[in-house]
Amino acid sequence: MNTRTTFLGLGAMGTALAAAALDAGHSITIWNRTPHRSQALGESGATVADTVKEAVAGDGVIVACLFDHRSVHDVLDPATAGLSGRTVINLTTTTPKQARELALWAAERGITYLDGAIMAVPQMIGSPGSAILYSGSATAFEEHRALLDLWGESSYFGSDAGMASLYDMALLAGMYTMFAGFMHGAAMVGSEGVSATEFATWATPFLAAMTGGLAGFAAVIDAKDYAGEGQQSLEFTETALAALTRASIDQSVNVEVLKPVHDIVRRQIAAGFGKQGTARIFEDLRSTR
Amino acid sequence: MNTRTTFLGLGAMGTALAAAALDAGHSITIWNRTPHRSQALGESGATVADTVKEAVAGDGVIVACLFDHRSVHDVLDPATAGLSGRTVINLTTTTPKQARELALWAAERGITYLDGAIMAVPQMIGSPGSAILYSGSATAFEEHRALLDLWGESSYFGSDAGMASLYDMALLAGMYTMFAGFMHGAAMVGSEGVSATEFATWATPFLAAMTGGLAGFAAVIDAKDYAGEGQQSLEFTETALAALTRASIDQSVNVEVLKPVHDIVRRQIAAGFGKQGTARIFEDLRSTR
Repeated sequence: MNTRTTFLGLGAMGTALAAAALDAGHSITIWNRTPHRSQALGESGATVADTVKEAVAGDGVIVACLFDHRSVHDVLDPATAGLSGRTVINLTTTTPKQARELALWAAERGITYLDGAIMAVPQMIGSPGSAILYSGSATAFEEHRALLDLWGESSYFGSDAGMASLYDMALLAGMYTMFAGFMHGAAMVGSEGVSATEFATWATPFLAAMTGGLAGFAAVIDAKDYAGEGQQSLEFTETALAALTRASIDQSVNVEVLKPVHDIVRRQIAAGFGKQGTARIFEDLRSTR
Repeated sequence: MNTRTTFLGLGAMGTALAAAALDAGHSITIWNRTPHRSQALGESGATVADTVKEAVAGDGVIVACLFDHRSVHDVLDPATAGLSGRTVINLTTTTPKQARELALWAAERGITYLDGAIMAVPQMIGSPGSAILYSGSATAFEEHRALLDLWGESSYFGSDAGMASLYDMALLAGMYTMFAGFMHGAAMVGSEGVSATEFATWATPFLAAMTGGLAGFAAVIDAKDYAGEGQQSLEFTETALAALTRASIDQSVNVEVLKPVHDIVRRQIAAGFGKQGTARIFEDLRSTR
């Protein structure tokens, strides 16, 4: 069942998505604001549309992978007439709030909306490490599953269109802070002439092993069991962070990345929770709504 | 070869180290400032010393696991007379600078010094996940290897006594920032009623997989190849971090942990490096010495 699929936006990611569909034998129509990006795929058999209106003229699913939330509106708003009764899969990076706004916008126009958050770089699309999180229309997710699975492992997070993006951003928050923490460590050993590569041979398995502790923190957080047995106390963690900070300063390393973690731990201790578990950091970060 | 080994300090960690040696058939002498902590090991066959002087009266290796750097001096300084020609393995948590100070102190008194940094909690001592980093006297490391290997995987980082502690702290800097980043993510999804446990089922394999990217950052850092091909640009990362920050604020999550990473990326862009790779964060953190 090779429906004609429309791809709007041919940046590095949009091109990777369209190329994977074309390679798998799908008939595709492509459009990009600056036409030169369509050339290579056009030569490989894609139908190149000159306008968005022309690109969405068929009856297949529409895949959008644009610059940001605003550009989704810039591109789709003028073409609304042709979109009623159709399905839009939006893989543009948006916040949860923006994804919900688009889902509402689509619902008001009779458009079926599926939001996707890509956990991969363009080069990974279609290879085993690639994962895409989806939320919004369950029907769209099921109906186009074969297409979605061409790009990576597809996971569905429910009908609230904001959830895929929320999970995506929550995971990326962990990733970017881990990357910064690794670079802090590399800077510490680097100050004594140790290469970052040598440090990575230790840090890679160590940090991977330490992810094994996250489920334990999660169980404590969910049970609000911060006073329970067997946890590393905030006081112990504060002593460790104070030593890390002192050692970093001794090595002339910028402590900016470490400081907020230390600040939060000290605030929790000042609030009287020093004997409780370190997972209490969560209480300082979480929503107060 | 079961030399009599002296253990100074019987906190949770010191007790675990001494118990592992005793269980393996070593003859041990133990001392702790508050005597009640010696009782259980004494009943299991350890010789309990009333004073440090008495504890170090033999000719075996001395293992110190005390509260901090200052307590190592408090305990050893008055017993110096009996330590010349002996070997001290110090597993007390210290900064690299403090470890070097102790190594110098030892050298001036004819004491062989090996510094150790324990990458484990007391319950892990002697089990497969436990690792201890050592630096200082290579002779001491080789000679007592059988004892050290009872506690966990032993690795030697060279004759500079500060290196074990430096690696330890560099790795812990990565670990604590990763933990805080995980809790930030848990707070984001938690604001929509998702449990931390549900989030951990996604975050654990994701962050473990992302450690696979550290070697790539390291290669870029070592080659100072920030302008090289195929890297995620600081501009791209800034867009992602701005979206994560906006989404966190939308969910009423405290952005304190994310902010320094975002600040560093923005500073690098302001300095003209926006098209260069994200590993440039390292340049902002590293020693300027």
